[in-house]
Amino acid sequence: MKAKLSSIIEVQAPVAVKTEEPKKKPECYGVFCLTYDLKAEEETKSWKKLINIAVSGAAGMISNHLLFKLASGEVFGPDQPIALKLLGSERSIQALEGVAMELEDSLFPLLREVSIGIDPYEVFQDAEWALLIGAKPRGPGMERAGLLDINGQIFAEQGKALNAVASRNVKVIVVGNPCNTNALICLKNAPDIPAKNFHALTRLDENRAKCQLALKAGVFYDQVSNMTIWGNHSTTQVPDFLNAKISGIPVKEVIKDTKWLEEEFTEKVQKRGGVLIQKWGRSSAASTAVSIVDAIRSLVTPTPEGDWFSSGVYTTGNPYGIAEDIVFSMPCRSKGDGDYELVKDVIFDDYLWNRIKKTEAELLAEKKCVAHLTGEGIAVCDLPGDTMLPGEM
Amino acid sequence: MKAKLSSIIEVQAPVAVKTEEPKKKPECYGVFCLTYDLKAEEETKSWKKLINIAVSGAAGMISNHLLFKLASGEVFGPDQPIALKLLGSERSIQALEGVAMELEDSLFPLLREVSIGIDPYEVFQDAEWALLIGAKPRGPGMERAGLLDINGQIFAEQGKALNAVASRNVKVIVVGNPCNTNALICLKNAPDIPAKNFHALTRLDENRAKCQLALKAGVFYDQVSNMTIWGNHSTTQVPDFLNAKISGIPVKEVIKDTKWLEEEFTEKVQKRGGVLIQKWGRSSAASTAVSIVDAIRSLVTPTPEGDWFSSGVYTTGNPYGIAEDIVFSMPCRSKGDGDYELVKDVIFDDYLWNRIKKTEAELLAEKKCVAHLTGEGIAVCDLPGDTMLPGEM
Repeated sequence: MKAKLSSIIEVQAPVAVKTEEPKKKPECYGVFCLTYDLKAEEETKSWKKLINIAVSGAAGMISNHLLFKLASGEVFGPDQPIALKLLGSERSIQALEGVAMELEDSLFPLLREVSIGIDPYEVFQDAEWALLIGAKPRGPGMERAGLLDINGQIFAEQGKALNAVASRNVKVIVVGNPCNTNALICLKNAPDIPAKNFHALTRLDENRAKCQLALKAGVFYDQVSNMTIWGNHSTTQVPDFLNAKISGIPVKEVIKDTKWLEEEFTEKVQKRGGVLIQKWGRSSAASTAVSIVDAIRSLVTPTPEGDWFSSGVYTTGNPYGIAEDIVFSMPCRSKGDGDYELVKDVIFDDYLWNRIKKTEAELLAEKKCVAHLTGEGIAVCDLPGDTMLPGEM
Repeated sequence: MKAKLSSIIEVQAPVAVKTEEPKKKPECYGVFCLTYDLKAEEETKSWKKLINIAVSGAAGMISNHLLFKLASGEVFGPDQPIALKLLGSERSIQALEGVAMELEDSLFPLLREVSIGIDPYEVFQDAEWALLIGAKPRGPGMERAGLLDINGQIFAEQGKALNAVASRNVKVIVVGNPCNTNALICLKNAPDIPAKNFHALTRLDENRAKCQLALKAGVFYDQVSNMTIWGNHSTTQVPDFLNAKISGIPVKEVIKDTKWLEEEFTEKVQKRGGVLIQKWGRSSAASTAVSIVDAIRSLVTPTPEGDWFSSGVYTTGNPYGIAEDIVFSMPCRSKGDGDYELVKDVIFDDYLWNRIKKTEAELLAEKKCVAHLTGEGIAVCDLPGDTMLPGEM
C-alpha cells in the first residue's frame, strides 16, 4: 500500500452506503511500489498529470496485448504517464503477477504504477478509464440466457464498484461479451456516473468491415471512411454500407455488386472471428487489443473532419428513433476530450432500417432477460436464435 | 505476386551462384496485395521510403506481439511505412494466415505490404531488417549439442538465404536460441553481408538487470544506466554492476551490499524467465518483444549522451581483449544510422574479468560444436554443464 495514497482514503466521505470493510488499495507490484518524483518529471519533461487506468481480465490474452500498448505510450501519447490497476480473479492472480513482472522488465518510462488485485472495490479506486475485458466464456451446454446471467452478475458488481470508488467522470469500455448488455447492466448499477460514459466495443467489427469493403473495391483500407456498425455486437450487427464511403464516394457508387453488399458483406464481417479461430487456433486477441486502442484514441483525439467512428453507447436521446434505454452501436464524433456526440447526418433506407430494427429487437429481448440485474424487476428470457459471434470472449 | 516487384527480379545479376530455381516472391496476403499510391503518400504525408522487414517464427507468440508493434509505427516511427515479410513453416502456415488476417483487420496506415511464405530465399528478398525469432525448442532428452545442431542448421540456411537475396546492408537480430552461436552461424553463412550487421538479442537480460538494480536500490528503473550484459545469452551471462550507474553514480557506491551484487543479482536476472513461466504458465513473449523493439530503436535513434546499450555482436576487432570471431554481448553506442560502435571507456576488475572469461570459454566451446555449420571443419562438442536459460525459446 502506498503511503502517498492513504490520505485520499481518509478524506473519503463517510456517507458511503457500502457497509463492507473500509476500502483498501490494491497491492502495488514490485518496482512500481517504489517512490519516484513524478511531480519533478511533470515539470522537467512537460508530462501531463498521471491517469489511472483499470483493466479487468488483466491476465487474459487480449489484456496481454493491450497493457503493453497502454504502457508504451501508444494510446495516450508520449507525454502521458499512467497507472495500471489490474483486476484478476483468484484463479488468475498468479498469472497476473507474471504480467506485472513482464511490465517491470519492459522499463516503460511512462508506466509509473502497477497494482493488482481481485476486488473491484479496490482496483477501480479513482479509475479514470475502466477497460472491462474479463468475462466468463460459455460453458458446455450453457444457453445464451445462462451466459447473460453469469456475465451480467460480474458487470452488475463491477458497475457498483465503479459507482462507489471510480472517478466521477470515468470512461468505461466494455469488451467482455455479451458486451452491449453487459454495458447496460454496468451503467444501471452505476447511477452516479453519466450513462453516456459507458461504451460497448464494436470497433473490431468496424475495422473488419472497412477491410472487407477495401478488399472488394480493390483499394487500400485507408480509403474507407464513415463506417458505422449499428446495434448489437452479435450476428445481428449491421455494418452500414449505405453511409460508408470509399475515397470519399458512397460505397454503393463504388461497389455496384448490390447482392454482395446485401448478402455476403455482413456475413464476412460476422464470421471473421470464427475463420480466424480455424486458421490460428485461438481467438483474435491482438486485433481486438488494437481495436480497443482505436476506440480509446477516438475519444481522446479529435475525429477527422467529415468522418466518424462506431461505439456501442446509451440510446436515450438518440436522434435516429432507436429504442431508448439500451446500449446500441451508433456513429459518433469526438472533440478529443473523452466525450462524444452522435452523428446526425446519416441516411436510412428500408434495407438498413429493417436490419436495425432486428438488432434492436434482440437488444430489447436481452434487456428483459437481465431485468433482475438492472433493478427492473423479474427477468423474462425470450431470446431469438443464438447470435453469439463465433470466437468472441 | 506483385507486378511492381517483378522488375526488381529481372534486373538481378545473373552471376548468383545459387543454382536452384529462379527466385520467387513470397505470397502477398489479402488486402496487402492491392495497389496503393505510396509514392503520392510519401510526398503528401512526408513519409520515408518503404522498408522491408523480414521476421522468422512469425506465427509464434513473440512475433504475435512484435509484428503489431512494428506495424503500429512504435518502432520505426510514425513516418516510416513498412512491408512485413513473414517466414513460417509448413506446420505453421495456416496460423500465419491468421496473423496476416489480424494485421489486415488492424488497419495500420503504415503497414503497406504483408507477405507470407516458408522459403527464406523468397521471404528474405530485399530485407533491410531480418528479425530471426523462429527456433526449435529442445525436445525431450535432447542434449545441448543436439539443440545447437538442429538450430544451427536453421540459421545456416537462413544465413545463406540472406546472403543470396537480402539487402546488402541488412541488419540481422537473432532471437532464437542459442542466439549467440546461431548468430555466428548465420553470419558465417552470409559472407557478403558485413559481420558487424549481425546481433544476438541480450536486451531482455539488460532490461531485467536494470529492473533488479532499481528494486534493490529503491529507485525507479529509469534511474539505471550504462548496463552491460557481457557474453552469452545463457546462465554464464555477466550483468555488469561495475560499470552500471544509478542516477549517474556507480552502482557499487549506491548498493553497498557486495554479497548481493556478487551472489544474488546475476542469478535473479538469469532465473527471471523461469520464475515467469511458473507464475504465468508460459514464456515471456510480451517483454521479449518489447526488448526487440528496444534493440531496434537503439540502432535507429542516437544513444543518449553518456549511456550505452548491450547487444551480442561480432568480436573481431573488439578493444577489450575478448576472443575474436565469436558473437559476444558487449556495450554499444549508435548514431542512429543502424550501425554501432563498441564503447571504449569501461573498466574491469578481477571479479568481472573472470566471469567474462567463463562466458567466453562457453562460446568458444559452442563454436567448436558447430564447426560443421560455419565451414570450419569437423564439429567437436565438449560443452560445459547445461547453461540454457530457463523458459527461453
